Amino acid sequence: MPELRKDPIVGRWVIIAPDRAKRPEDFTHEFKTSTDRFDPFLEGNEESTPPEILAYREPGTEPNGPGWRVRVVANKFPALQIEGDIDKRGDGMYDLMNGVGAHEVVIECPHRETNMADLSVDNIREVLWAYRDRLVDLKRDPRLVHGLIFKNKGAAAGASLEHSHSQLIVSSVVPITVWEEMSGSLEFYNFRGRCIYDDMIQQELANGSRIVLDTPGFVVFCPFASRFPFETWIVPKQHSSHYENIPRQGIEELGMVMKTVLCKLKTALDDPPYNYVLHSAPFDSTELPHYRWHIEIFPRLTRVAGFEWGSGFYINPVMPEEAAEFLRDIEVDIEQPAKISAAAS
Amino acid sequence: MPELRKDPIVGRWVIIAPDRAKRPEDFTHEFKTSTDRFDPFLEGNEESTPPEILAYREPGTEPNGPGWRVRVVANKFPALQIEGDIDKRGDGMYDLMNGVGAHEVVIECPHRETNMADLSVDNIREVLWAYRDRLVDLKRDPRLVHGLIFKNKGAAAGASLEHSHSQLIVSSVVPITVWEEMSGSLEFYNFRGRCIYDDMIQQELANGSRIVLDTPGFVVFCPFASRFPFETWIVPKQHSSHYENIPRQGIEELGMVMKTVLCKLKTALDDPPYNYVLHSAPFDSTELPHYRWHIEIFPRLTRVAGFEWGSGFYINPVMPEEAAEFLRDIEVDIEQPAKISAAAS
Repeated sequence: MPELRKDPIVGRWVIIAPDRAKRPEDFTHEFKTSTDRFDPFLEGNEESTPPEILAYREPGTEPNGPGWRVRVVANKFPALQIEGDIDKRGDGMYDLMNGVGAHEVVIECPHRETNMADLSVDNIREVLWAYRDRLVDLKRDPRLVHGLIFKNKGAAAGASLEHSHSQLIVSSVVPITVWEEMSGSLEFYNFRGRCIYDDMIQQELANGSRIVLDTPGFVVFCPFASRFPFETWIVPKQHSSHYENIPRQGIEELGMVMKTVLCKLKTALDDPPYNYVLHSAPFDSTELPHYRWHIEIFPRLTRVAGFEWGSGFYINPVMPEEAAEFLRDIEVDIEQPAKISAAAS
Repeated sequence: MPELRKDPIVGRWVIIAPDRAKRPEDFTHEFKTSTDRFDPFLEGNEESTPPEILAYREPGTEPNGPGWRVRVVANKFPALQIEGDIDKRGDGMYDLMNGVGAHEVVIECPHRETNMADLSVDNIREVLWAYRDRLVDLKRDPRLVHGLIFKNKGAAAGASLEHSHSQLIVSSVVPITVWEEMSGSLEFYNFRGRCIYDDMIQQELANGSRIVLDTPGFVVFCPFASRFPFETWIVPKQHSSHYENIPRQGIEELGMVMKTVLCKLKTALDDPPYNYVLHSAPFDSTELPHYRWHIEIFPRLTRVAGFEWGSGFYINPVMPEEAAEFLRDIEVDIEQPAKISAAAS
């Protein structure tokens, strides 16, 4: 059983998930990359994955067979385990609990495609809707309090399989980064009575220099204190702390926005490796006036040296204003908006 | 002039240091590695570096010529700039200041050597003493409030040059990781009246399972909530918040400890890439009863996927207890303790 352990000084939860196949003496510093050409995520290879948890399918097709458009399965090498008691406990000054939770893979398309930017807008909308569906479902489990959605694209960004996919880790603790955002934004709210994300959107729109895209419902910008070159955030204009409460028309628009931003990054940076993370409020809170869900995208252009890990001190060699201008000026040709498909409703 | 910018939500300071040689359109995702066989840090190549700021030299040798044992120079591509006013200012809701500070390189030996583990204990002691000397000197500058010492060893750990070296970034802000440790340990101190590092050392020594090395003055252990496989911390037993106050006999012992730990890691993990970071209290505080300087070492054995960046959620596949046992059991043959050389005093 994996364990969740808390650093007593800074309050960071860490997942200790021993890889039973490996002893410490087997540990080498070779990075594993899949050289296997077999694609377990391809339509027709459904037997290579754990059984599907969710799939948007063509009418009349059978689970775990062809005919799907987006498919969610358990991670074959899960960091957390869905069965069992959490068993929160202490060990002297330390806090720990069992690593109960869900670790799922969202297979974003049935065909061989490595970049989400090359999926159709409708396809991306179904992926975004699948995120919502899984969070809504897992939220019912009272043991679980937070869902984190993320993508590793490209080997340099940590992907072990090329086929376009994202992941979901739903656990019984709140990751420290989200926790810090919630604390920081609450402090701002208590002091000023306003949501910090509103203030930020207002200033970004008024200033304009860091804006990448401005749509009726979303602002896309390179944040003032970007840690990485071309770091890009997607923030909804309407207040909403929980992503899983996104309405249908929100997904319609977000699909367009995601497609546009990912195409801009692809064109600007020659199809870079990248990660994105969707930050959302914990399940066990009601709508929070001070916090807002959002997506953070990080192209992996610089090798992050070790000292960033240890210091939290990032050196970014590109001005966010220059990155935003560059991205803003890139024209991308995406499809016309279309209705999200019925099966995703 | 580089800028220091603060994320208004979580309070993280970021260094924005535009690389003037590069426009955004020049940015590709190729990681640069030095294929140049020329070693600018080798004895005899002193002209290839900026002038020395500090050097421990053989009597009678000239600055910026051969005859040194440890040499400190400015970083040729500094993230911060030593000249200029800090000019703290606001931009609407954002805070920023000029990127004033020092970014120096500690060249650890005059001969071709890539791993600090292979330096003599006396050599390592002089490196540790150079850290102290530089902090003592830079602390006199009232514009600067914090000194961070770190090492990137191996390309996978972010090193661009192979010759064994470490770096020093001294700036006008406290890096967020140190800030979080200071806040967390202060909260513990206020609530319990004890230093959290004392409690931790006591529990680690009593339990024993995570101990790697126990010497009269230092405890070396794999922390309970290790983020990375074989993450190893070196913590002094005697309370001290500021590294630069370390006495001569502290360096004597720390040199032995560093040599032993680095040799253990080298043997255990087949000469892995690694980073270490020395965390120490800000210059502008007096001795703090709640905080303690320490060294965190991270071998780079797993590819850190992107989601750790965005979430602060680490997945560690090796139990800290297993890592510690493995390291503890490795016998290393280091030299006998010797006096730190007179030139380093």
